[in-house]
Amino acid sequence: MAVCSVEVVPLGTQSPSVSSYVASCLKVLEGYPDLKYQLTPMSTVIEGEVERIFEAVLKMHRVPFASGAQRVVTSLKVDERRDKELTMKGKVDAVQSKLSR
Amino acid sequence: MAVCSVEVVPLGTQSPSVSSYVASCLKVLEGYPDLKYQLTPMSTVIEGEVERIFEAVLKMHRVPFASGAQRVVTSLKVDERRDKELTMKGKVDAVQSKLSR
Amino acid sequence: MAVCSVEVVPLGTQSPSVSSYVASCLKVLEGYPDLKYQLTPMSTVIEGEVERIFEAVLKMHRVPFASGAQRVVTSLKVDERRDKELTMKGKVDAVQSKLSR
Amino acid sequence: MAVCSVEVVPLGTQSPSVSSYVASCLKVLEGYPDLKYQLTPMSTVIEGEVERIFEAVLKMHRVPFASGAQRVVTSLKVDERRDKELTMKGKVDAVQSKLSR
Repeated sequence: MAVCSVEVVPLGTQSPSVSSYVASCLKVLEGYPDLKYQLTPMSTVIEGEVERIFEAVLKMHRVPFASGAQRVVTSLKVDERRDKELTMKGKVDAVQSKLSR
Repeated sequence: MAVCSVEVVPLGTQSPSVSSYVASCLKVLEGYPDLKYQLTPMSTVIEGEVERIFEAVLKMHRVPFASGAQRVVTSLKVDERRDKELTMKGKVDAVQSKLSR
Repeated sequence: MAVCSVEVVPLGTQSPSVSSYVASCLKVLEGYPDLKYQLTPMSTVIEGEVERIFEAVLKMHRVPFASGAQRVVTSLKVDERRDKELTMKGKVDAVQSKLSR
Repeated sequence: MAVCSVEVVPLGTQSPSVSSYVASCLKVLEGYPDLKYQLTPMSTVIEGEVERIFEAVLKMHRVPFASGAQRVVTSLKVDERRDKELTMKGKVDAVQSKLSR
């Protein structure tokens, strides 16, 4: 299990607003019920099997081209740990428990 | 005003757990009451003036060295928009309103 | 065709030196003669088909676990353009021609 | 001393070509003779003091706004090591010496 963040950014789109592209990319994740995700202000965070995450992100990367974008820059950061289970909630809880001490 | 994400990662720390370093870095932000922030599973998201964000992130980058780390890799992504106000909440709302259509 | 950058970073490795892990990851690319690559001080840059890049990067991400790492953070940034061919050389040349004016 | 990579990307620029913006950003570095830099296909790599790098990158981030961009996304990754000197050349050499074994 891994936790990752992904951002899909179209370049050269007349308007600097790209939220409609981001929303279209997120719809790809409806086809992956085994992946949990969470929208944050700077990226979408996904939790699940690494192979499935790579497969979903490749599909998300292609979405803006279908909406007319001519250039897409996709950033993916994968955090995988094998000595213990890594989850979105567990990562945040670990930091917050140290902050509240 | 800008929204940014920041991750501070110490390398060569014997244990693969780094949440105590992350918690220490977050304490730097207590000295910046003008910056809003939100902890996410993959990064800390900050909202505020770009100059102040750079100043705070430089301080956060130095924290793990004070705790004994010998190498630190800090990633910062800054998203700034001048045609309209950019906020953490506004960015997420813009995507969610398109998703719910 | 796309150009991408990839960094594979093991955490909790006792030594802050990770170049041996990076070298092992690069050996994966020997199995992909259709992908061109270039080692830079901060990442490995790869040029080729997006599907093949994702496949190779997934394999690179797994390499440090086989060498004993317990946690691996892999960053991938993919830049794909469909209105014209994107190459490593073309991207650098485009900037340098503007610099020398 | 640190080594970093920086990418400055304007959004909503009508054309997907952004090399003229990148070239303008690089001119900022002419004012920093103490910083070495190297243009790569996916980012500009800079070597020098961390404080100076942050100062220069903040200036680079502002350049596309002066050329008419309304939104700019700047990514900075800083790699700093205090147990030994970190240089652009040293990082690449360390990997290549392991590859040639």
